[in-house]
Amino acid sequence: MSRLLQLADLHGSLADPLLDAMTFLNEVTGRYPEAISFAPGRPYEEFFDPADIPVFLAEYLGHLREERGLTEHQVRQEVFQYGRTKGLIAPLIARALAADEAIEVDPEALVVTVGAQEGMLLVLRALCAGPDDVLLVSSPCYVGVTGAARLLDLTVRPVPEAGPDGGLDPAALAQAVRELRAAGQRPRACYVVPDFANPSGASMDEPARRRLLQVAEETGVLLIEDNPYGFFGRSGAARPTLKALDGDRGNVVYLGSFAKTCFPGARVGYLVADQRVVGPDGARSLLADELAKLKSMTTVNTSALSQAVIGGMLLRGGLRLREANEPARQFYARNMDTLLAALDLAFQHLPGVSWNRPEGGFFAVVTVPFRADARALDECARKHGVLWTPMDGFHPDGGGTHQLRLSCSYLTPEQIVEGVRRLARFVAERLPDGA
Amino acid sequence: MSRLLQLADLHGSLADPLLDAMTFLNEVTGRYPEAISFAPGRPYEEFFDPADIPVFLAEYLGHLREERGLTEHQVRQEVFQYGRTKGLIAPLIARALAADEAIEVDPEALVVTVGAQEGMLLVLRALCAGPDDVLLVSSPCYVGVTGAARLLDLTVRPVPEAGPDGGLDPAALAQAVRELRAAGQRPRACYVVPDFANPSGASMDEPARRRLLQVAEETGVLLIEDNPYGFFGRSGAARPTLKALDGDRGNVVYLGSFAKTCFPGARVGYLVADQRVVGPDGARSLLADELAKLKSMTTVNTSALSQAVIGGMLLRGGLRLREANEPARQFYARNMDTLLAALDLAFQHLPGVSWNRPEGGFFAVVTVPFRADARALDECARKHGVLWTPMDGFHPDGGGTHQLRLSCSYLTPEQIVEGVRRLARFVAERLPDGA
Repeated sequence: MSRLLQLADLHGSLADPLLDAMTFLNEVTGRYPEAISFAPGRPYEEFFDPADIPVFLAEYLGHLREERGLTEHQVRQEVFQYGRTKGLIAPLIARALAADEAIEVDPEALVVTVGAQEGMLLVLRALCAGPDDVLLVSSPCYVGVTGAARLLDLTVRPVPEAGPDGGLDPAALAQAVRELRAAGQRPRACYVVPDFANPSGASMDEPARRRLLQVAEETGVLLIEDNPYGFFGRSGAARPTLKALDGDRGNVVYLGSFAKTCFPGARVGYLVADQRVVGPDGARSLLADELAKLKSMTTVNTSALSQAVIGGMLLRGGLRLREANEPARQFYARNMDTLLAALDLAFQHLPGVSWNRPEGGFFAVVTVPFRADARALDECARKHGVLWTPMDGFHPDGGGTHQLRLSCSYLTPEQIVEGVRRLARFVAERLPDGA
Repeated sequence: MSRLLQLADLHGSLADPLLDAMTFLNEVTGRYPEAISFAPGRPYEEFFDPADIPVFLAEYLGHLREERGLTEHQVRQEVFQYGRTKGLIAPLIARALAADEAIEVDPEALVVTVGAQEGMLLVLRALCAGPDDVLLVSSPCYVGVTGAARLLDLTVRPVPEAGPDGGLDPAALAQAVRELRAAGQRPRACYVVPDFANPSGASMDEPARRRLLQVAEETGVLLIEDNPYGFFGRSGAARPTLKALDGDRGNVVYLGSFAKTCFPGARVGYLVADQRVVGPDGARSLLADELAKLKSMTTVNTSALSQAVIGGMLLRGGLRLREANEPARQFYARNMDTLLAALDLAFQHLPGVSWNRPEGGFFAVVTVPFRADARALDECARKHGVLWTPMDGFHPDGGGTHQLRLSCSYLTPEQIVEGVRRLARFVAERLPDGA
């Protein structure tokens, strides 16, 4: 008879509803396979073809042999063996960052990570050293960040977004930093997604980005900029990232992901950390080097195989990804247009129902005059065949109880229209007057 | 001018020599490319061919289409998208475990991880919840474990091995548990490599394994069994793993790795955790489910691409790996024989120099009458062209200062013979009489 462990004896994060929420997000789709799902923040998958994988791999191997002049022995080593903890394809990523985002950075300041998630974990671990250290997060916030903080027993302080479409509020960050310091705590870093945030869909305009950088400069709080959706603006015009605006001033650690611009199954992301670190003996390193030391304790290396395939995709795209993603951008932009038009049609005359108008990305938020929780979701899926994500799990200190997140990335326009129709029936049923 | 961070403000692990030791292990080879290196615990790489990767991938895709009956849409989803946090190939791994190790386990009790390293991190995090919780480790110990513990700020208590060839001493574990409890601490788990341990090369015989399981049963301390080298015995005869001996009694969490039996660049490992966990409401889950929740905060998924390639290798090997690894076993066995013979020849008449006689695996340990530290290593590499690993970094509470680890996995027999010759010249130089 197998041993019984008490949940109460295991790490506290496992009894935290937050982690259940994340598991729930990952697996809810499987529970109602026939439902139209606005739940997962997944890329549309008809862009992918398994037959491309050997092609991308061959492209990267050709690059190693021809451009880098590696012998067959070295090629074998690169793909099959343990490699540098910082990763293999940092030089290719640095060139793509320069072309796509005007971010100029030494490849040595990059660490290739197992998705942006590992990058978050490493950055949080390095920066938050003791019980007085505090991580600030935009609120609502991606659960991957608050979850990683929970795993490390960190203290998290939410900073509100400026209205339904405004993104993180720089003045609110400055205020939170003052309050924390007055209480004897050390605000260390602030996590923010300036473009089409998950879950809110909100974006910061350029003046707000500049004000945020100024707050970081003045307070010494590092900004952790996460940018998974930046290519996918509805208008096609892109705003500069915080990292690009900051240049080499070191106020920003940048997290990048290939999950949406290449594919999630590779699990390849990266971080840019060009801050200098000085030890007690005066020796200097890059923050990236320190983060790589931590990575040797989490995953040792990012899959060399995955890096080779992503490297091949970068090479085939001419070491820039934005153009290669233009068909995807148009697809997602049309989906968001479709979603917003469908919401207008379904809800514009319903009192108490409102929604925001994201400028791009995968997500929009609908506010309803009833509790939109896991129980409501389950009923909605069962009775009306449509899935969405409750917003309460994205609020570290409560809130979002009457909001639901709709993701439009994974569906066709036809599915979006039908999905909103079904959602409207569910909402109508729940309204006080039954309208 | 980029921002300057003080190392003292970052997490304490970054100022710990342990993490430098790990980085050092990974990168020392690059510093002396011409030296013969007994340092890295890498598999021999002439077994690998990049042309095999598309073949393995095709094998797995064929399995999805034909045996599992997936549509092209589902195949695409499996390889490219986010997937179940527990992983895709757990059913294939479970079948290989049954064939290779007589470990019978429900695939639902498996989590596919980014190498065994991520498995360690997850298990340590789940089991060590508070400041009184203690992780016991065999001493000397693999730095990946003590490093992961440091990253999580865990308390580590070393348990000595029983002599140079004996592996972890069960009586010493029982004693350590008593002492910890008497001091008001909670010993939670004990990390052990029963077969050909890294770094000592020592193995536990079957009676010792049974005694260890009895200590676990009596004290409630979970055993974390790590088994990267188990296939590579010199005699070919394999001892049963702790997990196989324990059956379904739940005293063991088993960590597996494909780094040595397939290849490191895939970064695919797994854990088996069939313990049942009961919550305050009486709800039950498997420990594997709880560990998967933590994984959603570290890496979300293990690379689907890497899992597909490893899955293809498992399928091509008839869902067993031991036979497919017989040529590798013979290669490593011959290397270890060669190493031990060369050590006999070089050192048998030198007073104060001794070494152990591992029954297999990648590592042996030489004891010398002088400090075998990083400085000695650097001189040895520079003057004599041979690299090894100082043992002091593997001792959590000091020790090993006069020992060096030799890894024979990555070299040819000819290189081993020449390497030991060079090492003998270095040692002779350092002996008191200059002999």
